[in-house]
Amino acid sequence: MEKNNQLILALDVTEKNKALDVAEKVYEYVDAVKIGYPLVLKTGIGIIEDISSRVPVIADFKVADIPNTNRLICEQVFNSGADAVIVHGFTGRDSLDACVATANEYNRQVFVVADMSHPGATEFFQQVSEKIAKMSLDTGVSGVVAPATRTNSVENIRKIIGNELAIISPGVGAQGGSASDVINKGADWVITGRSIYQSDSPDTEAKKVVQEIKNRN
Amino acid sequence: MEKNNQLILALDVTEKNKALDVAEKVYEYVDAVKIGYPLVLKTGIGIIEDISSRVPVIADFKVADIPNTNRLICEQVFNSGADAVIVHGFTGRDSLDACVATANEYNRQVFVVADMSHPGATEFFQQVSEKIAKMSLDTGVSGVVAPATRTNSVENIRKIIGNELAIISPGVGAQGGSASDVINKGADWVITGRSIYQSDSPDTEAKKVVQEIKNRN
Repeated sequence: MEKNNQLILALDVTEKNKALDVAEKVYEYVDAVKIGYPLVLKTGIGIIEDISSRVPVIADFKVADIPNTNRLICEQVFNSGADAVIVHGFTGRDSLDACVATANEYNRQVFVVADMSHPGATEFFQQVSEKIAKMSLDTGVSGVVAPATRTNSVENIRKIIGNELAIISPGVGAQGGSASDVINKGADWVITGRSIYQSDSPDTEAKKVVQEIKNRN
Repeated sequence: MEKNNQLILALDVTEKNKALDVAEKVYEYVDAVKIGYPLVLKTGIGIIEDISSRVPVIADFKVADIPNTNRLICEQVFNSGADAVIVHGFTGRDSLDACVATANEYNRQVFVVADMSHPGATEFFQQVSEKIAKMSLDTGVSGVVAPATRTNSVENIRKIIGNELAIISPGVGAQGGSASDVINKGADWVITGRSIYQSDSPDTEAKKVVQEIKNRN
């Protein structure tokens, strides 16, 4: 995934035609498209192959199982053509290592969820968020995921990981995060979904975010 | 899922024909078949429909996302004919509630991962294991998942949840857990994979486990 426009599309739709249509309209404005389980379960994993022929795909599968199952899931992910997979770190180092080892075999990338922004994340997740970020440092992952709706968390995680890892940051647009703010706080890419794919003109919306990032103070 | 033989098959294969063949051979000995992402990603979610026409299916997807994504994943799970889904609790109550609300719409079941047995589970997971079991109590889930390889954990979780929830317990057979031991320690169902599906005679192996449970002291 090359860092050009610093924008990733969260393609959180469940209809194949809609997914392909939006991806086709915005591919020149985004550095990657993030695809989750709802779309893959509805349409089949071939959707990743379809879209990755145009633009790198990040499989947002939040992989959270024992090492052997993580490996089997990641094999399916990379066989389908995805460039990267998003995995959980709270299942521990061995589960994460299994994902990285598989990614290395395919010369692909792993991103670890370092923080989440929904209210329930305060109950268990945010108490280990910093530890998960630290653990990610020497594992061979490419980066971590931290929410644009909590820029203080992005800033904090950037301090923990230094410049070794990238930060990709969902929650820009409909969820309230600002693309320019979160890039200024240390994110390398922002991830935007609804404000692009729900628009009548996804390309115009994608271009707007790219411009906002380029013109930020 | 009716409690008859107290055995669930973990169908952790990735080939469709093998999956259908094993399921066909053991369906009269098992109360349910547990299917995970590797098989579903490889063959499509239709495999759940195929197998659930013969025996109840538990989708072991370890769902671990924000509430809205959890809801979308569970919709796909239940639309495919699964009777139950396995979800993570560490993402918090709202994420879990989203799964339960979706299960209720379909009149289906949710099981929450209360403990895991791989080495990495000691790093973050086991520190909140009891809290996750407690949280599960008043959510409307049907039960929790706790490993047969750590029977003290099963015993402890049974104390926490009393008789309100069921315990399903993976790790029996090749991983070293004993079916009769873990049932005696409080599990309602044991989950066995390799020792059944890797056998030349899966039905004989399944029958053996059922007999061991019925004849236990």
